[in-house]
Amino acid sequence: MKTNTISVLVENHFGVLTRITSLFAGRGYNIQSLTVGPTEDASASRMTIVVDGDTEIIDQVKKQLNKLIDVIKVVDLTNEDFIDRELLLIKVSAKGKTRFSVLQFAQVFDGSIVDITPNFITIEVSARSSKIDAFIALLEPFGIKEMARTGRIALARS
Amino acid sequence: MKTNTISVLVENHFGVLTRITSLFAGRGYNIQSLTVGPTEDASASRMTIVVDGDTEIIDQVKKQLNKLIDVIKVVDLTNEDFIDRELLLIKVSAKGKTRFSVLQFAQVFDGSIVDITPNFITIEVSARSSKIDAFIALLEPFGIKEMARTGRIALARS
Repeated sequence: MKTNTISVLVENHFGVLTRITSLFAGRGYNIQSLTVGPTEDASASRMTIVVDGDTEIIDQVKKQLNKLIDVIKVVDLTNEDFIDRELLLIKVSAKGKTRFSVLQFAQVFDGSIVDITPNFITIEVSARSSKIDAFIALLEPFGIKEMARTGRIALARS
Repeated sequence: MKTNTISVLVENHFGVLTRITSLFAGRGYNIQSLTVGPTEDASASRMTIVVDGDTEIIDQVKKQLNKLIDVIKVVDLTNEDFIDRELLLIKVSAKGKTRFSVLQFAQVFDGSIVDITPNFITIEVSARSSKIDAFIALLEPFGIKEMARTGRIALARS
């Protein structure tokens, strides 16, 4: 099993998201992350799907995706040279002495402080997924109150 | 119609994403953006859904979401004080004289340059969705080759 990053350009029609997620669910594969947002074309959205699966099965899924009417283009970035990023918002316990450590870690990871209260600091970090994982692991001992990750977005290098 | 931001904490079970997107599609509402990614708890994922709809209908959808077995918690952030961010990767035409203008705009929006070739610049910007919209509008005249947006993630302020 390996981690695959698939970019799908779709028409903005009702139910297209459901049809696509069903395709993955039907194979018993759980989607690690999925993002869908507007693109340069107002009538289309771009989905980025990160999913674990054997190459053969993923190839089948790609074929099925290409058959869907609302799918404009499927690009499997897994073996391509691509730029990928992910965004994290994380609220961490930080009071007294620990506040300085948390702020320092945020700085090392090029994070921005988006909110600060007497007990918590909320940080925003944009990076590759593996770096986001490392940042979260570093903050874990302080106590993570809440967090949200966007999942990966990716563009092929030109 | 207004824009609603709903945060849904779900168990990592097969098909949960399909069940949730079906709920929205069944009402005929198109999802503006959707992100799903890991959380502080390895067995759960957090979805952030941005959807247009009247308050009454959205209230019904929230009730239906709460009835799903895999749904742990539904928080409607629409009328709450929340921190929201979105990430954009955008590849823009930039050669000769225009390159400097593009770089300057990127700087004003606190963007990072993630790739540069003789003809294109790829920029990463993390900001509120409305600011992302403004940045894209600014770059449009240069020629947008490709872009991907994560959709909004959000955390309630403490």
